[in-house]
Amino acid sequence: MDPGRRLLVSGLSETELLARIVPLLSVNAGRPTSTLLGPGDDAAIVAAPDGRTVISMDTLVEDHDFRLIRPNGHRTSGYDVGWKSAAQNLSDINAMGGSATSLVVSLTLPPQTPVTWVEDCARGLAAAIAQLGANGCSVVGGDLGAGTQLVVTAAVTGTLEGRAPVLRSGAGAGYTVAVAGTLGRAAAGLAILEDGRPVTDFGPSGEELIDAQLRPHPPLAAGPTAARAGASAMLDISDGLLRDAGRIATASGVGLDLDPDALQQYADPLQETADRLGIDVMDWILGGGEDHGLLAAFPAECPLPPGFTAVGSVVPGRPVVTLASRATVLRGWDHFAD
Amino acid sequence: MDPGRRLLVSGLSETELLARIVPLLSVNAGRPTSTLLGPGDDAAIVAAPDGRTVISMDTLVEDHDFRLIRPNGHRTSGYDVGWKSAAQNLSDINAMGGSATSLVVSLTLPPQTPVTWVEDCARGLAAAIAQLGANGCSVVGGDLGAGTQLVVTAAVTGTLEGRAPVLRSGAGAGYTVAVAGTLGRAAAGLAILEDGRPVTDFGPSGEELIDAQLRPHPPLAAGPTAARAGASAMLDISDGLLRDAGRIATASGVGLDLDPDALQQYADPLQETADRLGIDVMDWILGGGEDHGLLAAFPAECPLPPGFTAVGSVVPGRPVVTLASRATVLRGWDHFAD
Repeated sequence: MDPGRRLLVSGLSETELLARIVPLLSVNAGRPTSTLLGPGDDAAIVAAPDGRTVISMDTLVEDHDFRLIRPNGHRTSGYDVGWKSAAQNLSDINAMGGSATSLVVSLTLPPQTPVTWVEDCARGLAAAIAQLGANGCSVVGGDLGAGTQLVVTAAVTGTLEGRAPVLRSGAGAGYTVAVAGTLGRAAAGLAILEDGRPVTDFGPSGEELIDAQLRPHPPLAAGPTAARAGASAMLDISDGLLRDAGRIATASGVGLDLDPDALQQYADPLQETADRLGIDVMDWILGGGEDHGLLAAFPAECPLPPGFTAVGSVVPGRPVVTLASRATVLRGWDHFAD
Repeated sequence: MDPGRRLLVSGLSETELLARIVPLLSVNAGRPTSTLLGPGDDAAIVAAPDGRTVISMDTLVEDHDFRLIRPNGHRTSGYDVGWKSAAQNLSDINAMGGSATSLVVSLTLPPQTPVTWVEDCARGLAAAIAQLGANGCSVVGGDLGAGTQLVVTAAVTGTLEGRAPVLRSGAGAGYTVAVAGTLGRAAAGLAILEDGRPVTDFGPSGEELIDAQLRPHPPLAAGPTAARAGASAMLDISDGLLRDAGRIATASGVGLDLDPDALQQYADPLQETADRLGIDVMDWILGGGEDHGLLAAFPAECPLPPGFTAVGSVVPGRPVVTLASRATVLRGWDHFAD
């Protein structure tokens, strides 16, 4: 190969590409692992110590869920995409009150994809597992194939460690509504990426907010902690606080009333960036997804566990989300309805 | 909507599309099921009665793994793609000696995809699970999103029911090499599809062979049966007998010698079709994948269980595949090497 040219995936067989990325996925050397049989056979085997496996799946599609290059020149790396794929999948197990045990990952790659991009994607997957604290979890298998567009699909398994799952349907009137993790930061990062101006125009927080969009940090300890503390309903905030709160309301047959004063603490650090972009900061707090924090309802007698902040309460009546008891339709609820 | 126009996925929200397909996925009404929590929350929960979960993943990409329309006008339906996605994933669990417990499925859909295509895909998934006898297995979750190309990724979980997995690495010299299921039929069907002539030119077997390509029937009872009977190495024949036999040879550090006389019984029914296409029928038997039969090695003292046919033996020496003790490179081994 001409050393001046980048090696593309079209220049390698599936076996050769696998041989390059499997070593990059190793995260559990010398540590306890849920993997009983790793990559290399027809299937992998993962421990399910309490006789149940939690399972979910999420897909990232180029030009829909990420853009390789933005108007301001910002490039989304393979590392970013691998990280985000792992993070959003791990978050689904967290939202049930469980801990992730494995990922399987399918990469659909245009032939002109640089091999380094795929290697970076593997590094991002492994880094997210390790740095987000998904102890015992590994990438145990997957699939590689060609297509016209980059598509990354991961399935995640997890264990509830003997506990009952925390569903969306368990909220009751009088319960406290609380959030773990961040709100609005990923949406702010997306707004910066989609703005035409250079990232440096947004000061040091510009890069941090872009990181929140590209490499979200779901609070993976918070899910099991909430389950142990008695959370009765929970989900991960992937589509925005209002929309996801609406899902708990619908599943539980109750209303959720959010407290604007409590939400202000999430808005304040984003105010300056929002002003610069001419955006109402509360649009990010109420409508911005992808931080992958948790929204949970705790019975009034349960003290909130560390990491959770009260942002409202469950109210009897129609399954709608209100803000200080007022309808949220004015806040763009319709935009986020599905 | 104008009743004369087909409803496209771009005309529905994700929630509306889900509401149409989830009911079509139901296969276990009134039957025992491994599903402890089905679709609708952040994740599903599947039984893992022996404390282990087998997991694998396979992706089908439009224009790579299937074509919506062929030169001879043949259309691949959503039902076909759903069936094949389920079948190839279920086969991976079968190849470990296990039984499938769940599928999660991600559909990436161009906006102009007819909703009926997606509904047919769901029906095909459910039909494969039911008709192939994957008892207790259901589609428990997944993801829906937009892209430029149809991509169907499924992950499958399974149980080993307390048994050890049957790996690729357990073949020993003197063992019997045996096949369950069919060989070469899916490859013959693909050759008919890729030929320009109408399917009817190939007689009644033409449609049957196309069915074998589009809706393969992996022998799902055979995997657990082989494991109980003492099979010491096994995989599913997805890339062709020679190539997959080479994987057992490599993993086990032994040679596999195949018996052309034993393989003749698979070739005979395809001879006329091969002649019509001007193809050497043994290319399909040795090189054709996608039937998703099983290739297994049984210690000499184990009687072959029902459904398995001896096709060769394990020999000491280099990890290569031979045909009547002769090198298989002449048979196109290089074409199938990866």
